[in-house]
Amino acid sequence: MSDLIRFGVSLEKGLLARFDKAIRKNKWASRSDALRDLIRAELIKQDWTEGEGEVAGAVTLIYDHHRRDLLGKLTDVQHDYQGLVLSTLHVHLDHDHCLEIIAVKGIPAEIQKLAATLRTIPGVMHGTLMMSATGKNLA
Amino acid sequence: MSDLIRFGVSLEKGLLARFDKAIRKNKWASRSDALRDLIRAELIKQDWTEGEGEVAGAVTLIYDHHRRDLLGKLTDVQHDYQGLVLSTLHVHLDHDHCLEIIAVKGIPAEIQKLAATLRTIPGVMHGTLMMSATGKNLA
Amino acid sequence: MSDLIRFGVSLEKGLLARFDKAIRKNKWASRSDALRDLIRAELIKQDWTEGEGEVAGAVTLIYDHHRRDLLGKLTDVQHDYQGLVLSTLHVHLDHDHCLEIIAVKGIPAEIQKLAATLRTIPGVMHGTLMMSATGKNLA
Amino acid sequence: MSDLIRFGVSLEKGLLARFDKAIRKNKWASRSDALRDLIRAELIKQDWTEGEGEVAGAVTLIYDHHRRDLLGKLTDVQHDYQGLVLSTLHVHLDHDHCLEIIAVKGIPAEIQKLAATLRTIPGVMHGTLMMSATGKNLA
Repeated sequence: MSDLIRFGVSLEKGLLARFDKAIRKNKWASRSDALRDLIRAELIKQDWTEGEGEVAGAVTLIYDHHRRDLLGKLTDVQHDYQGLVLSTLHVHLDHDHCLEIIAVKGIPAEIQKLAATLRTIPGVMHGTLMMSATGKNLA
Repeated sequence: MSDLIRFGVSLEKGLLARFDKAIRKNKWASRSDALRDLIRAELIKQDWTEGEGEVAGAVTLIYDHHRRDLLGKLTDVQHDYQGLVLSTLHVHLDHDHCLEIIAVKGIPAEIQKLAATLRTIPGVMHGTLMMSATGKNLA
Repeated sequence: MSDLIRFGVSLEKGLLARFDKAIRKNKWASRSDALRDLIRAELIKQDWTEGEGEVAGAVTLIYDHHRRDLLGKLTDVQHDYQGLVLSTLHVHLDHDHCLEIIAVKGIPAEIQKLAATLRTIPGVMHGTLMMSATGKNLA
Repeated sequence: MSDLIRFGVSLEKGLLARFDKAIRKNKWASRSDALRDLIRAELIKQDWTEGEGEVAGAVTLIYDHHRRDLLGKLTDVQHDYQGLVLSTLHVHLDHDHCLEIIAVKGIPAEIQKLAATLRTIPGVMHGTLMMSATGKNLA
């Protein structure tokens, strides 16, 4: 963990009271803890918007594994983008449906292209991209 | 404006450096200023999710004003929900299309119902709901 | 209104049944009506992401009008970006707080810059950008 | 796969042309394919908003594994909610940071509570909830 720096913040009394209430409700350990989370979420949003530097995330797909050629195509695409794909989790939701979560790391634009390609493979019922960070820039 | 309260926050050195950079880039006047904005955005998100208390916002509609009965229906719906509608701004985008922005104040669930009703009036091409606050709880 | 073109769509029986239920619930007039709305929302999302061509939208601000210099700065910024600002709606929420909605039209990147500049003026408590379309591309 | 039903849709000529362009760009196989995706995304949004019925999703966490007690707490929480947790994927991002993706299935409100609890464990740097479906309702 990096060194901690302490600094002062001035906030309106009423706003601080509401924030303290939200801190208790969300079970944050302290004001610093809550503010750290808000700051990190803001920085991650900027990282994805500006598109520079490395980010991490997850592509989640729901599909029917009986669909012909689907599994082959899913694997092909993941190999085409193998520099981005870290690891994959596969869950059998029921007899027909699978949930596949693909952990990714790389440049935002490339990850978004991979997610778009996976999402439109015939048989994929829903695909989403979850945007996070590599951690390095948040410490 | 309410009284200001000053308190200390501890943050990792590297994280604070990245935050300071974002503050300069977004032209926030100070760390307190930036944190105040992040806190308010978080509280507004919670107000709309939890659904208690009064919020404010705006419904924005794009429509073709030539569409038969459209203007009458838009007015009818706004009168049905007149407790929520504060004021309306109408802009002529071009010969056919209008942008109408309806300022609203009330309980989240009722505002969301109004927005859903407006959005599905035939001839309305796009409708969105912008969620904000009445200001009272943010001071 | 442009000419209508009729084409056939094939959908899974169960999915169509769920969609029909959602159509009734949201009071869309027909399947075509509901699909038109989904298509337009998707195109608008792409217009804002790709950033080419003209879009329309609204910037919504909540602020305390007692704050010194605030009104002057708000007006200055709107004049700096006057090519984008179509019209402004001002609502007095209570004794202290104002809701100001600024209708805008232009290139996505410029509108986003205007929204970011307005949002960080000291005294502005919350600012959001609502993304819509000029209508021209949706007809 | 369920039976396919064919029905007719009427759309404005210009809007259909723009949609066809988007279909080619996003590499959807056909209009039916693209509309199916838009319909499913809309239904999933409703499932999460209305909160009835079972949904699936993924909670993604970034954390520093050196943080004392963190791993124990993460495991404790997942066991407290074991009815929801399907499986977990763990990736070592670098010497300090981990990406953990938890596949979940259950009632929206419970999944959201689990995500909120995980997100505020001290040492968790960023947490997000990705909302998808079990597939059953989308076929």
